[in-house]
Formats: sequence, structure tokens, C-alpha cells
Amino acid sequence: MEHVNPQGAAHVKVLAFDVFGTVVDWHKSIMREVQSMKLDVDGDQFALAWRAGYMPAIRKVMYGELDWTLIDDLHRMILDALLETFQVTHLKEEEKRKLNGVWHRLDPWADSVEGLTRLKSRYTICTMSNGNIGLLANMAKNARLPWDCILSAEIFRKYKPDPATYLGVAKVFGVEPGEVMMVAAHQDDLAHARACGLKTAYVERPLEYGPSQQKDVSPHPDNTVHSRNLVELAAALNC
Amino acid sequence: MEHVNPQGAAHVKVLAFDVFGTVVDWHKSIMREVQSMKLDVDGDQFALAWRAGYMPAIRKVMYGELDWTLIDDLHRMILDALLETFQVTHLKEEEKRKLNGVWHRLDPWADSVEGLTRLKSRYTICTMSNGNIGLLANMAKNARLPWDCILSAEIFRKYKPDPATYLGVAKVFGVEPGEVMMVAAHQDDLAHARACGLKTAYVERPLEYGPSQQKDVSPHPDNTVHSRNLVELAAALNC
Repeated sequence: MEHVNPQGAAHVKVLAFDVFGTVVDWHKSIMREVQSMKLDVDGDQFALAWRAGYMPAIRKVMYGELDWTLIDDLHRMILDALLETFQVTHLKEEEKRKLNGVWHRLDPWADSVEGLTRLKSRYTICTMSNGNIGLLANMAKNARLPWDCILSAEIFRKYKPDPATYLGVAKVFGVEPGEVMMVAAHQDDLAHARACGLKTAYVERPLEYGPSQQKDVSPHPDNTVHSRNLVELAAALNC
Repeated sequence: MEHVNPQGAAHVKVLAFDVFGTVVDWHKSIMREVQSMKLDVDGDQFALAWRAGYMPAIRKVMYGELDWTLIDDLHRMILDALLETFQVTHLKEEEKRKLNGVWHRLDPWADSVEGLTRLKSRYTICTMSNGNIGLLANMAKNARLPWDCILSAEIFRKYKPDPATYLGVAKVFGVEPGEVMMVAAHQDDLAHARACGLKTAYVERPLEYGPSQQKDVSPHPDNTVHSRNLVELAAALNC
């Protein structure tokens, strides 16, 4: 299943990871939280709807409809609307805050910690996520993700897919864009990274949207690497 | 030698570390680098002079004499002047770049990795350094410093002692200033942190400026903790 474009990976020094869906399983983690809070909603649908609100919210910031707003606050805005839609009216402010914090406690995919640990032995591994720094740091501590460095849209005050984010990774580490490889389970994220000169590795994550949804995980020939998971990516990069 | 102010540490969640001098030994690392390059200079004096150029350079940025400039570039400006003063004229550009990179390769004090690892078991541990993110990440990878998160003046675009840096740590983690403890080998850094409401831990590091210099490491009663090193700090905080 895996493939490596032989010209691609030779000069890579830094692996920059998308996080939501690529490293952690938001769908299952949110379903579990909703169930543990005994909310009277379909956990699958609730998780999907929360995540579906994400890109429209990001776009509002990108196009200036909203001032710069951290993901924690965007998640909360989406959640408040969602609770109304799903007719959940009994939650206290403290419970809403706790529920919104689920994004800090997302579980890693089964291969993530082993894959990252192996990749770290040869590369600098960092996040390049739209998640805010505190969210990503709390998640890493909770899930034992061994990042060398947490990079976030918060640092560049631009959200992916703004080129400032992809190019920002190269700038932070003083390397060329072609020495950075973006790793993601989303072809559009990788296409934007590639347009900035980064190498790209696709990770399938067919269950990202839960078992009720079909996800197209077919390879794209322009990616440097295609792999099913992070352990397979480590093997493909000889780690 | 160690003391803990009993009211102080109870609510602390995040330990934010000064890095140069507190976690890593810049003096010995630079001396070693200068000797390995066989520069015809007094390594002790060269290291002291390089570091002495640091605060004046930071002040130029703080007072607007210089636009926002990363530490890597400030270190290089100081180095260029220093090479002239010390009459080192034969270095090629590539060698100067390598020498300037020594700040990415500073060695930890003997107790740093053990102390941080123990502290990490109970607290979120992060840097709050004027060093740029890439420098701090490269240093952490090289010295195996197990940070949960790398915070830097680069994120806040303000240098310590600007309050935006100390308060920025609390903001990133969504906690109160009093839930953050600044750890440093410099009383002035801690005084500024305290003025922002942070708790403070002093670490002595009597050899910070090398054996030729006397450093006053006497306790200040306003610090929450006084400790000789990071292992002692871990013990003082029951880690």
C-alpha cells in the first residue's frame, strides 16, 4: 500500500504534522465524551456536525468576517449553536467548558505514538495544526505525543491553508521549504503545502469520520509518500 | 539550601523555564566551540563578551531602535562585532554561521534532564526564553530536554522582561498567572515575573559565567522556591 517517490524524501529534515484526524481520532473521542456525559444525542452525528462547523469558522477568520480567533473559541461558538440544534438545553457553563475541552483530550490513533517516536529518531517532528498552542500541548501531554516542537496557526496568526503557515515551518527551522515534509490525512492540506514547495506524505485514516462515513483514501501521485498509518510512514522513511 | 514558601506552590500547574544559564551552560559550551575551532582567542573572555552583548541588543529591540529581530540574528550581529574586537579575520561566512549556531547546541547542566523529567511528571513544563523557537527546538533535540511545549519571545513578539511574555504563558495554557511558576537563575527575570503575578523559583547556577566570575546566588525572600539545581527543585516540589 505504501509508496515513496524516490526523489522526494532524501533532503527532508523536518516532518510537520496535521493533527486532527491525522494523529488523533476526533470522531471516536468526541463520541465517547458525549456518551460519558449522557447527552441525549446521536454521538456519531454530534461529532460529525461539530467537526463540520470547523472549516466554515476558519474561513470566517481567513476572510476577515471574524477577527483572529483561537480554535478553542471557534470550537465553543460551533458547540453553542450545536447544542441548540440538538436541543441540549440543560448544560451548565462549567459543563459546556468541559465538553469544549474534549479537543484537548483527543485519543491518538493506535499507531501514532510508535510511529512518531520512530520518526523522531531521524527527523525533527512538529505539529503544523490550526489548533491553538495550549490545546496541542495539553493533547500531547495527555496522549504522550513526543513532539520536538509544537507549531500552530497561533504562532503565524494565519490559518492553514494560508502559505504563511507552511512556509513558516521552514522559516522557524531555517531550512528550505523542500526540506520540510507535511504529513496529513487530507489531500487538500497536502496540495496547499506542495504549492509552497514542501514535500508531502498522505496517511489514509479511513475511519476519520467514523464507520458510518466512506472516506476516499486513494493515493495522489504528487505526494512524496503514501502510507496507511504512521508506523508505515516510519518504515517508508527508513526509521 | 533549598526552601519552599509553603503558600506558594500549591496551585501551580505550569513551570516556565528561562533557558540560557538556567537549563543550559552557555559559558562552557561556547568556550568548547571556540577551542574546537582553534580560534586564537581567550575562550572565557570570548564567551563572556558574546553573552554581555545580549541585553543591550534586546534593549535595542524593546526600545524600537531595531525592528523585531530574532535572537539568532542578534547573536550574529554581536558575533560580527566581537570577531573584529578579538581580531579574528580569517573566518569564512560558512564558519561564522556554524559558530553562531553554537547557541543551538548548548549543553545542559548535569542535573537538567533528570530534573526536567521528574518535574514533567507533575507539571506542564515549557520554555519561556528570549531564544527563537528554532533555536530552542534544536537545542532541546540535541540536549534531550523533554519540554511539553516550547514558548518563546518569538511567539509574543516581545522580549522578556515585557509583561506580554510572562502573562502570555498563562494565556496560552488558559490558567491564572498565579498558576504559572517562572524558573530562572536570574533574580531580575523572576522579579519581573512576580510583578505579573507569577510564582517564582530561583536556581543558583554559580558557574553560569565560568569559574573566573563570582555570581551572587543568595536567596531572595520573595521567591516561592530557592534551589541549587533542577533535581533539587523537583524534590522541593515533591516530584
